Amino acid sequence: MTEGTEKKIERREENTVFVGKKGVMGYVLAVVTQFNNGAKEVNVKARGKLISRAVDVAEIVKNRFMPDVKDRSIVIKTEELTSEDGSKSKVSAIEIQLAK
Amino acid sequence: MTEGTEKKIERREENTVFVGKKGVMGYVLAVVTQFNNGAKEVNVKARGKLISRAVDVAEIVKNRFMPDVKDRSIVIKTEELTSEDGSKSKVSAIEIQLAK
Repeated sequence: MTEGTEKKIERREENTVFVGKKGVMGYVLAVVTQFNNGAKEVNVKARGKLISRAVDVAEIVKNRFMPDVKDRSIVIKTEELTSEDGSKSKVSAIEIQLAK
Repeated sequence: MTEGTEKKIERREENTVFVGKKGVMGYVLAVVTQFNNGAKEVNVKARGKLISRAVDVAEIVKNRFMPDVKDRSIVIKTEELTSEDGSKSKVSAIEIQLAK
């Protein structure tokens, strides 16, 4: 399961950071790097219990590293997951759009 | 510590539900009750790891109980806590404003 989470980080979309189970600062660094590479906005996404960590990432980026970055929009939603045996479960998700 | 969290639920402000360590459905019920008692908006607040649970509460209220309720605004911020020995620590917080 941890492996699956970490793969998600690698196959990230343009300007998106998926927050997984690694330490907070790794995701902070990923966001800061994308801004420093010219991105005007970066989306921080997470699901389930990792939502709290996504908020930490956004707050640390804004308050400690990039005071000119703001959260432009925050969306919460419910996603439906289908497991291998076909059973479905629902999980909350967050998407925080950070922008300069 | 658990005791402190639960006290917070009791001394809630008008139209505010502080999400603590109890089960999700208790907070869902608290929100639904406030709407049924005539509230036009209810704020769901949480700090730290409980942020994920606050999102669950909001999503369950919207999707399962009150389809006419929407999240009107979502604010994330950093709060500074002072412990008994005077040391300070920072914690992320969320405030989800649900409205009919």
